[in-house]
Amino acid sequence: MSTFGRIYRVSTFGESHSPAVGCTVEGFPSLIKVQREEIQKALDRRRPGQSSLTTKRNETDQVEILCGLENEISIGSPIAFLVRNQDQIKKDYSEMDQVPRPGHADYTYLIKYGVKAQSGGGRSSARETIGRVCAGALADIYLEKQLNMNVFSFVTSVGDIQVPSEFITKIVNSPLREYTKERIDALGNITIFKDTLDNFIYKCEDIFYNQQGDQVLSCNETLLVQIEIVNMRCPHPPTAIKMIQKIQSIRGQKDSIGGTVTCVIQNTPIGLGEPCFDKLPALLAHAIMSIPATKGFQIGSGFEGTKMQGSQHNDTFYSDKQQNTQNSEKQEKVKQQSVILKTMTNNAGGTLGGISNGQSIYFSVAFKPVSTIGLPQKTSNLEGESTVLEAKGRHDPCVLPRAPPIVDSMASITLMDAYLLQQTHIPKAKEGSSQWQYF
Amino acid sequence: MSTFGRIYRVSTFGESHSPAVGCTVEGFPSLIKVQREEIQKALDRRRPGQSSLTTKRNETDQVEILCGLENEISIGSPIAFLVRNQDQIKKDYSEMDQVPRPGHADYTYLIKYGVKAQSGGGRSSARETIGRVCAGALADIYLEKQLNMNVFSFVTSVGDIQVPSEFITKIVNSPLREYTKERIDALGNITIFKDTLDNFIYKCEDIFYNQQGDQVLSCNETLLVQIEIVNMRCPHPPTAIKMIQKIQSIRGQKDSIGGTVTCVIQNTPIGLGEPCFDKLPALLAHAIMSIPATKGFQIGSGFEGTKMQGSQHNDTFYSDKQQNTQNSEKQEKVKQQSVILKTMTNNAGGTLGGISNGQSIYFSVAFKPVSTIGLPQKTSNLEGESTVLEAKGRHDPCVLPRAPPIVDSMASITLMDAYLLQQTHIPKAKEGSSQWQYF
Amino acid sequence: MSTFGRIYRVSTFGESHSPAVGCTVEGFPSLIKVQREEIQKALDRRRPGQSSLTTKRNETDQVEILCGLENEISIGSPIAFLVRNQDQIKKDYSEMDQVPRPGHADYTYLIKYGVKAQSGGGRSSARETIGRVCAGALADIYLEKQLNMNVFSFVTSVGDIQVPSEFITKIVNSPLREYTKERIDALGNITIFKDTLDNFIYKCEDIFYNQQGDQVLSCNETLLVQIEIVNMRCPHPPTAIKMIQKIQSIRGQKDSIGGTVTCVIQNTPIGLGEPCFDKLPALLAHAIMSIPATKGFQIGSGFEGTKMQGSQHNDTFYSDKQQNTQNSEKQEKVKQQSVILKTMTNNAGGTLGGISNGQSIYFSVAFKPVSTIGLPQKTSNLEGESTVLEAKGRHDPCVLPRAPPIVDSMASITLMDAYLLQQTHIPKAKEGSSQWQYF
Amino acid sequence: MSTFGRIYRVSTFGESHSPAVGCTVEGFPSLIKVQREEIQKALDRRRPGQSSLTTKRNETDQVEILCGLENEISIGSPIAFLVRNQDQIKKDYSEMDQVPRPGHADYTYLIKYGVKAQSGGGRSSARETIGRVCAGALADIYLEKQLNMNVFSFVTSVGDIQVPSEFITKIVNSPLREYTKERIDALGNITIFKDTLDNFIYKCEDIFYNQQGDQVLSCNETLLVQIEIVNMRCPHPPTAIKMIQKIQSIRGQKDSIGGTVTCVIQNTPIGLGEPCFDKLPALLAHAIMSIPATKGFQIGSGFEGTKMQGSQHNDTFYSDKQQNTQNSEKQEKVKQQSVILKTMTNNAGGTLGGISNGQSIYFSVAFKPVSTIGLPQKTSNLEGESTVLEAKGRHDPCVLPRAPPIVDSMASITLMDAYLLQQTHIPKAKEGSSQWQYF
Repeated sequence: MSTFGRIYRVSTFGESHSPAVGCTVEGFPSLIKVQREEIQKALDRRRPGQSSLTTKRNETDQVEILCGLENEISIGSPIAFLVRNQDQIKKDYSEMDQVPRPGHADYTYLIKYGVKAQSGGGRSSARETIGRVCAGALADIYLEKQLNMNVFSFVTSVGDIQVPSEFITKIVNSPLREYTKERIDALGNITIFKDTLDNFIYKCEDIFYNQQGDQVLSCNETLLVQIEIVNMRCPHPPTAIKMIQKIQSIRGQKDSIGGTVTCVIQNTPIGLGEPCFDKLPALLAHAIMSIPATKGFQIGSGFEGTKMQGSQHNDTFYSDKQQNTQNSEKQEKVKQQSVILKTMTNNAGGTLGGISNGQSIYFSVAFKPVSTIGLPQKTSNLEGESTVLEAKGRHDPCVLPRAPPIVDSMASITLMDAYLLQQTHIPKAKEGSSQWQYF
Repeated sequence: MSTFGRIYRVSTFGESHSPAVGCTVEGFPSLIKVQREEIQKALDRRRPGQSSLTTKRNETDQVEILCGLENEISIGSPIAFLVRNQDQIKKDYSEMDQVPRPGHADYTYLIKYGVKAQSGGGRSSARETIGRVCAGALADIYLEKQLNMNVFSFVTSVGDIQVPSEFITKIVNSPLREYTKERIDALGNITIFKDTLDNFIYKCEDIFYNQQGDQVLSCNETLLVQIEIVNMRCPHPPTAIKMIQKIQSIRGQKDSIGGTVTCVIQNTPIGLGEPCFDKLPALLAHAIMSIPATKGFQIGSGFEGTKMQGSQHNDTFYSDKQQNTQNSEKQEKVKQQSVILKTMTNNAGGTLGGISNGQSIYFSVAFKPVSTIGLPQKTSNLEGESTVLEAKGRHDPCVLPRAPPIVDSMASITLMDAYLLQQTHIPKAKEGSSQWQYF
Repeated sequence: MSTFGRIYRVSTFGESHSPAVGCTVEGFPSLIKVQREEIQKALDRRRPGQSSLTTKRNETDQVEILCGLENEISIGSPIAFLVRNQDQIKKDYSEMDQVPRPGHADYTYLIKYGVKAQSGGGRSSARETIGRVCAGALADIYLEKQLNMNVFSFVTSVGDIQVPSEFITKIVNSPLREYTKERIDALGNITIFKDTLDNFIYKCEDIFYNQQGDQVLSCNETLLVQIEIVNMRCPHPPTAIKMIQKIQSIRGQKDSIGGTVTCVIQNTPIGLGEPCFDKLPALLAHAIMSIPATKGFQIGSGFEGTKMQGSQHNDTFYSDKQQNTQNSEKQEKVKQQSVILKTMTNNAGGTLGGISNGQSIYFSVAFKPVSTIGLPQKTSNLEGESTVLEAKGRHDPCVLPRAPPIVDSMASITLMDAYLLQQTHIPKAKEGSSQWQYF
Repeated sequence: MSTFGRIYRVSTFGESHSPAVGCTVEGFPSLIKVQREEIQKALDRRRPGQSSLTTKRNETDQVEILCGLENEISIGSPIAFLVRNQDQIKKDYSEMDQVPRPGHADYTYLIKYGVKAQSGGGRSSARETIGRVCAGALADIYLEKQLNMNVFSFVTSVGDIQVPSEFITKIVNSPLREYTKERIDALGNITIFKDTLDNFIYKCEDIFYNQQGDQVLSCNETLLVQIEIVNMRCPHPPTAIKMIQKIQSIRGQKDSIGGTVTCVIQNTPIGLGEPCFDKLPALLAHAIMSIPATKGFQIGSGFEGTKMQGSQHNDTFYSDKQQNTQNSEKQEKVKQQSVILKTMTNNAGGTLGGISNGQSIYFSVAFKPVSTIGLPQKTSNLEGESTVLEAKGRHDPCVLPRAPPIVDSMASITLMDAYLLQQTHIPKAKEGSSQWQYF
């Protein structure tokens, strides 16, 4: 199915070479100001940049909002987003490609449907994620402006190059809005310079570093030739520069490499997620594992946490009474009996029993190396005869720099849906009673 | 929501201390022979055994099938399963527990619903999984008997004790039905003996081993005192015995420990799973991450695969024409144009583009250490005052030995649903035409 | 599918001769007091009474609530209801019935599933409605106690005997709670007496009437012999007594007769129902037409309204400022710009554009004559040979007296679901702002 | 919600004055030839014609298929349809209309969402039905070409002018494809001529009739002036001409009038529809009652059938062995034990127990008179002050001539979904067994 969510229902449509891609969203609340530019901005983040880290294809991807708004205010109707595909030329059936690409969906689509798109990835193309990004950006407007939530992702590893785990912990626990999508993009936006010694130094947020990640206090800009600006979307510059080098090296080999993304969701209301099959981590896992090229999902302590003992892993509750200013009506009510509790550590990753506990939610995602590579690959054609496949054209050696906006989208869609569903769970107090009475 | 699946729709109900737990299943095909004993057998696997590795609570858990069968044949109606809870005593509200347990759902349920079950885990209790096991066992009847599929799980790590990865690969690629739920249970069913020297040796499938995992060729049984039979559900006996030692040590500390389970699904028809949001790995991740205490899910190469290069990771297609005996109607049709392809390696874990490719599906799951521990824990009560919590009673130090039947269930439910949905995707050929004509 | 609703999700299970029937309900809000007796009372209304108008079968139908409540308070978990079937004896397959009953589901089930229940109606039996009545009674607790709504149905025709339309209009527009389920039952509960002249008079609410429906001012009870108490569920006694006579006459012929039920829903909040496919009349039509034996549904002016001109049919808006005391938060907000509007007439039947407008919702339902009759019927067996079928046993000549509780249930389930879904549509104002600001 | 269906899932989007309207369809089988012209043809049927019976607005409504097809073959992906709105000018909020139109959704949308579309009907506009017609036309391609089904609707009454019931019965039972959408359009396409005597005669299918409906054997065309071609979509010409007169008279009064549509579905496979909540009549009722302006739905004998006795109403089974040529695989299997049964009469309207029985399905639908009329109407503004509303512009005095294509669409969508769902219910026989063995 191409639909996700129970209340905030997102349906994407479109293939790589169809006239258009897009999505429709049902269940977005009314009376919310939505500007086309906010959605376009999210699409621009998704789009390949100007660096050698990502594909050179020129995709402009201007979004049109077909309905659901009037004077930039949501009116409760479905909101539909449309992005035209630039390249819609379809091959003739007679030229049908007889060699399914290893690691791709070519073969499984053919068997599933008895037919597959003749050009590009068809429905399995990354262009399908355009619709997700639109729906995620729309959700984000609500989450950020109405609920003060903060959803952002960043690259935490490329191959064996990893951001130090203490740095990730620091970001997860950072004060609200110190790290945001914009801040991550800024920190991960690295300019590489060539100096006279044929080494390079790089600049991040107006500070220059050498290849070892040491800060270079003074530099003679007249000696430097800027060679590229790269948005690695890794907020730890010393690691980011190593990732860039790694990707450049892999590109040189006409090969590809995988990596991981971590997503952080701050200021989630307590109580989101359902007890049984629709636990918040289960919904997030579903959402995230539906992104092309993902191979793993872990929340909080994840796989490492399996090595811990319960006494270490359990997050101790405490109360910070000064901060009890969260404004949910329900929490108000409960506060009459109890205070808002926090936890000292966050091995849980922000959920207990599948339900958000008010701490930062964080999870990480494994992306496999891109399947399309320039290296010749031995494979079989559909007649079962051995053959060698060599991909033409320019392809991303690594999807990681482009992945965070898509992970953000799926996280935002999931949280939005969980938030709306939660509105149905507790009855409002009857008029005249200041509090709900149940006995 | 307490419902999972689109066609094979499973709804569980019940709390730890309600009169009963159970589930209803819609969408199970008609005309299938279903015997109560098959469901009961699955529940018996889920039930705590006779060893010190699992809780001593006595749960008999006899299932009653309330409807949907006549003379043991499914008639197309919903099938409902009922298991009575033995312990239904509920505390009075006045005794309301003021100290939410760290790592538990107590606090988040209270905020979510304004109320929480006063006794035990309520809806978040592991007893909720009884319904899942019934629905999984029902699905398995279809998957195994109709489709010749084989779904089975086993424990691959406890703390830092891990089954060697080559052994896991061997199982994934083993000939169909060499490993099954029954075989795993048999291999993981280890008898520990005490010898005169206060060391122990153990027996697995009638072979005796010493603590180092070396086979002990002869042993004098008269010297031995059997102390326990443990079903560790780890099919690698040398590792299993280390896991048993680890768990016994952790129990001695009144603490708990996590671990991982791997699930293998053999002989899946090609074409299951949907292109976009309902990719098979996404559905499996959703299903699995809805099991209590799970923190991570990875399929195929998973997180390790992120370190690989595309040229290594891509699974090469080949054709083994002699083995083209799979009997799906659709595959027959496609065979007229093409042969069934296989892959040399299986880093994909059995799916490409989210759709099953006919290779073994395998994934692993992270289980955190059990939250309820005997050690005193500092925490806060609902008034925000510091306090110390000390769990009474006997608790599992490790859920891993009990986890495989539940992982099996969720995998079977997911595959069953994907299989039924796939029946709607390709039209049948019209009468008189031997093959579907589309142009 | 055996599930109805998006948020308030009702799943029924069970066949006529399975061990049990029942239902599970998801999405019922937490913190609501629910007593088993309230559900049982609704089941007792559904159960055949003590008169010759309905079948003599003795069904005690005691409901057990399996889970979802603690100390009679809902805790947000699914609530499951169980009612044991008294008669579970199943015939052997060898005795398989070869003659499908005309007007019954026997034949279509057999073709649909390749098998049909061997005993009674199986899943198509009216016993399936027990689950609906439980779920409806649960919804009613919320609708009545939380929202002050009033849902009730009554018999408006049997064959060609009809309640005068002005009387129906009077009930629709009656002050809230003048007519209720209880009141309808009381008015429709008619005692028939035999007098010395071999005519009869009848008593309704302690007033005696003759056969012409004229009030009999005095009567000598010593001359009278009470012959039966009949709950016709028709609140217009002169018509009710004619219906009773009609049904008795039809019974004498070993035949059956149809009729109509009208349902009224008072005090519905404005705004329930969705704009497009899930308009409130569409949801109600779905719900009602899923009741066995229904053949038609009309809301407001219905089929008669097709003969009207727009100038007559349009319901004029007016404002009754004194009555603007409805307490919905949302309506409060809108009141700042506007007052609550009412309509002079109610041809719309309480919805405009598919959304409730605050006026009474009313609709009527056609029930066909019962298919099982004592008269011999010519038909065909499954081999295609002509045969004659003669139903054994006692059967209802008319389902109408038993229909109102089931119509009530489906109406309540539908309204409950629409109400909960509406909670997701408008965002709450942010803290610190007394009103939602959208520009 | 704006989505309908479980497998064949249709989501419409767009408002009357948004940039576009359209719909997305999931679940359409792959490998089906779909041509844009087939969809456009259905939209053209929906579009107002060239007569005075319908509105004069000029809507060209060219559909674009955005995705899901390649070389006119469906590939299993969602299919999206887009139709641009010509008139997208939106009023400013300051000009907000303060007078909700009687009979319209203005007021209820405002309360439901806190905002309503400022121009035209917004989401409640009949332009929303464009998406339905696209999805229905797509379904029809499958139903007609793959399953040989025939779905068509026609106008059966306008005000108190009704097609004779025997004529409707004749159509329902007509040989397959004698009546079709095209045939109905042709018969209902009546040309009116003015003769010298200031009376008129009319032409239908090249035969001339006088006002009494008698065939006029010869006519002097030179004396005649053709005044209009009207597609009344009523296949009974004598009644059609009375309907035309009625509508013209109503237009003269600046008023409006309602009517009924009957839909016939021929050659439905036996077994469609689900036993409990999703009975086929319930799904159809839901689908049909979601069409704007509908007030009632009845299937088979409907409300009239409530006056019948069971002995008349029950449809007698018989076998017509010569005609057992239906080609369903499942029916083949059952035929080994039994023959295909038919019924002598069809009071059931083509379903038994909610499941199609292979006879023609037929139902009728009540449409209320159009709410927008030229006559001045007393009403209230949003401040509660009395005012008079007078609609400007040209409006349909009667929606009936435009209704059949929309009824057709919803019927086709419903049947398509039921057909696809049925594919999941019976397991296929295992290889090597000629028939499914269940004991």
